[in-house]
Amino acid sequence: MRSLYNRIARQNLERLAALSDGVFAVAMTLLVLDLRAPAAEAIHSERELLDALLTIAPRLVPYFMSFLTLGIFWLGQQAQLDRLAKSDRDLAWMHIGFMCAVCLVPFSTALLAEFITFRVALIIYWANIFLLGVILLLTWRHATRAKLIRDDTTAEVVSAICRRITIAQALYALGAALCVISTYWSIAFIVLIQLNYALAPPWPVPRRQG
Amino acid sequence: MRSLYNRIARQNLERLAALSDGVFAVAMTLLVLDLRAPAAEAIHSERELLDALLTIAPRLVPYFMSFLTLGIFWLGQQAQLDRLAKSDRDLAWMHIGFMCAVCLVPFSTALLAEFITFRVALIIYWANIFLLGVILLLTWRHATRAKLIRDDTTAEVVSAICRRITIAQALYALGAALCVISTYWSIAFIVLIQLNYALAPPWPVPRRQG
Amino acid sequence: MRSLYNRIARQNLERLAALSDGVFAVAMTLLVLDLRAPAAEAIHSERELLDALLTIAPRLVPYFMSFLTLGIFWLGQQAQLDRLAKSDRDLAWMHIGFMCAVCLVPFSTALLAEFITFRVALIIYWANIFLLGVILLLTWRHATRAKLIRDDTTAEVVSAICRRITIAQALYALGAALCVISTYWSIAFIVLIQLNYALAPPWPVPRRQG
Amino acid sequence: MRSLYNRIARQNLERLAALSDGVFAVAMTLLVLDLRAPAAEAIHSERELLDALLTIAPRLVPYFMSFLTLGIFWLGQQAQLDRLAKSDRDLAWMHIGFMCAVCLVPFSTALLAEFITFRVALIIYWANIFLLGVILLLTWRHATRAKLIRDDTTAEVVSAICRRITIAQALYALGAALCVISTYWSIAFIVLIQLNYALAPPWPVPRRQG
Repeated sequence: MRSLYNRIARQNLERLAALSDGVFAVAMTLLVLDLRAPAAEAIHSERELLDALLTIAPRLVPYFMSFLTLGIFWLGQQAQLDRLAKSDRDLAWMHIGFMCAVCLVPFSTALLAEFITFRVALIIYWANIFLLGVILLLTWRHATRAKLIRDDTTAEVVSAICRRITIAQALYALGAALCVISTYWSIAFIVLIQLNYALAPPWPVPRRQG
Repeated sequence: MRSLYNRIARQNLERLAALSDGVFAVAMTLLVLDLRAPAAEAIHSERELLDALLTIAPRLVPYFMSFLTLGIFWLGQQAQLDRLAKSDRDLAWMHIGFMCAVCLVPFSTALLAEFITFRVALIIYWANIFLLGVILLLTWRHATRAKLIRDDTTAEVVSAICRRITIAQALYALGAALCVISTYWSIAFIVLIQLNYALAPPWPVPRRQG
Repeated sequence: MRSLYNRIARQNLERLAALSDGVFAVAMTLLVLDLRAPAAEAIHSERELLDALLTIAPRLVPYFMSFLTLGIFWLGQQAQLDRLAKSDRDLAWMHIGFMCAVCLVPFSTALLAEFITFRVALIIYWANIFLLGVILLLTWRHATRAKLIRDDTTAEVVSAICRRITIAQALYALGAALCVISTYWSIAFIVLIQLNYALAPPWPVPRRQG
Repeated sequence: MRSLYNRIARQNLERLAALSDGVFAVAMTLLVLDLRAPAAEAIHSERELLDALLTIAPRLVPYFMSFLTLGIFWLGQQAQLDRLAKSDRDLAWMHIGFMCAVCLVPFSTALLAEFITFRVALIIYWANIFLLGVILLLTWRHATRAKLIRDDTTAEVVSAICRRITIAQALYALGAALCVISTYWSIAFIVLIQLNYALAPPWPVPRRQG
């Protein structure tokens, strides 16, 4: 009975992970979907096609930035789910809210790609990242308070995960604030933070795997 | 042989869950996909972009309502699948019918977002919720009659799941009926019911996990 | 070593199933995606909205037919994968070809919805169903010849699966041929065949579960 | 504790596989999505519909080529994941980069379908294949250096996988270079390479399964 209970508890976590993987996969694919081939009627030579493609090339920057964003938060969510022993209804709803914020990323990315020099577009993009971070922090707080995490998770790991999210969000906020100078400064700063997180481990998790 | 049989029976349930997770993930992502960035040609200042975004902001209400709807029915379906020991062909077809109703949610949401003050749009949205509830109720009835549910599921749990769906559907019908006053009343009432279901456990399942 | 081997062999089957579930889930969702809300500019009253919706209502028929088609072939593929003990490269490629045919279903459905009285559209739709059936038959032949199926699969089951596909395809071909009278006859006949397969078990598999 | 560790390590690999399956499934479905039914207004007879469909038929070539491309790289990634015992953060990020390249395939395919006689379009398509191959090669190098692969993987298998990717990429580069004669020569040559890989096993993996 105990093992049946555990199997069911794991299954719920696995379906939550499966739904999240599906949402992330579709959101990632839709990011690039907004890149459209130029209209054939306007193009009459190799040169014109190359020019048309170079015109849309700057749009690649927000898309790669969003791919990094989605990659970071997919790994962040996974690091939390790895540490859980079971799920409850509130946790499921918090993750559904997290997915709702993930689904907004293709919209805020398209907005930033279209209006890359507009501060309003950049603030909305940052608000989306902020929302993702806040939900992930609340999810982790709930998981620790409701004793959903695995027994082998030390208090050190618990607080390290909170600290990581808080520091990252402080840096993102600083990056967004740079838009008083220029949105390009903000984007460059945010991409640098993200590359730092992608190239160096932000969670204490990988130490277990060293 | 017995264990092989069980493994296969579980596998079929898992593929049904995987297909459902995929359909829900795509439907959730498509909901937000209909939010489009304003056309760049019409926007010349930060102020105009902000105004354009505020104009499309009310459209967010139907989208969040539909995210809640999909979250509620994803959890409702999961609560049923958790309690099953095996699947049969009829159950698979009933869940395929359920997914067909899930796939209609982005359409009925877009219709309501476009025609938020029209009773016809609201009734179609409600009919979609009603269809989801009815199929889930029939699926559960079939599962109990065809003895597909796990041995440890008490008669109390069986009837509690039926009662929950019936009460929720009665409340949704009441909400839809409020459109004789105004569709805004209906939407507000339906969102309140949904928030109540999201914030308080509608199924008896979580008690096991308390 | 043997158990490791089996685990890997099962894993490959599971990833094949996961990719298929993903392709079917996206294809199912895209079917309904082509249903578009009427343009808001042309609609000024509840009555006009209702009329506009009734105009697009006949388009629902090809969509539900395609949902049935995808459901039937998803179950057909699952019945085969259930019976496999391992996979090989040829089988993987045959299933990738099967998914390629699945991805064509939203296109052939949209074509039929747009040109419901045109025999050319109906023949292309039937060709898509034919392609799905032929690949599934070849996949099963390969699986039996390359000894990929489970030891407990009797020769009776092997031939029953072949026979089922052949009979279904003969009926679909007959339905398509009815387009010499009218495409509506074809559609009605194909939907009847499909409902028969959905409501009565076409494979010998469920007998195990009786 | 050891077995718990292994379970978690496997789980991370499984979520990476699940995200990849989702991305491949959506990318495959979107390939065919760009095939659009002709506009109903311009078509008045069976003959005109047939002519309109024959006009868009050549577009099928790039789509089937891309389905082959995605199939080859899905199997290539799977062959690597099969051989892994665990994952680490760098590996996860390299696979996220791989998915980013997978998501570009529908774009480069649409570009080639629209500009099939343009060398610029062909070079971009080839660059996408090249990117997929390079990331897969780097991923495998990292996996072997960071000792993430299973103990039963011989040095022979390790170098065979590297050699396969290098040879395939050399052939693709040769195919792309043929565009100095004509892009049709390039496309024909690349499709021939791909069919060769689809019909004959490129990795040493299937030998285990013979």
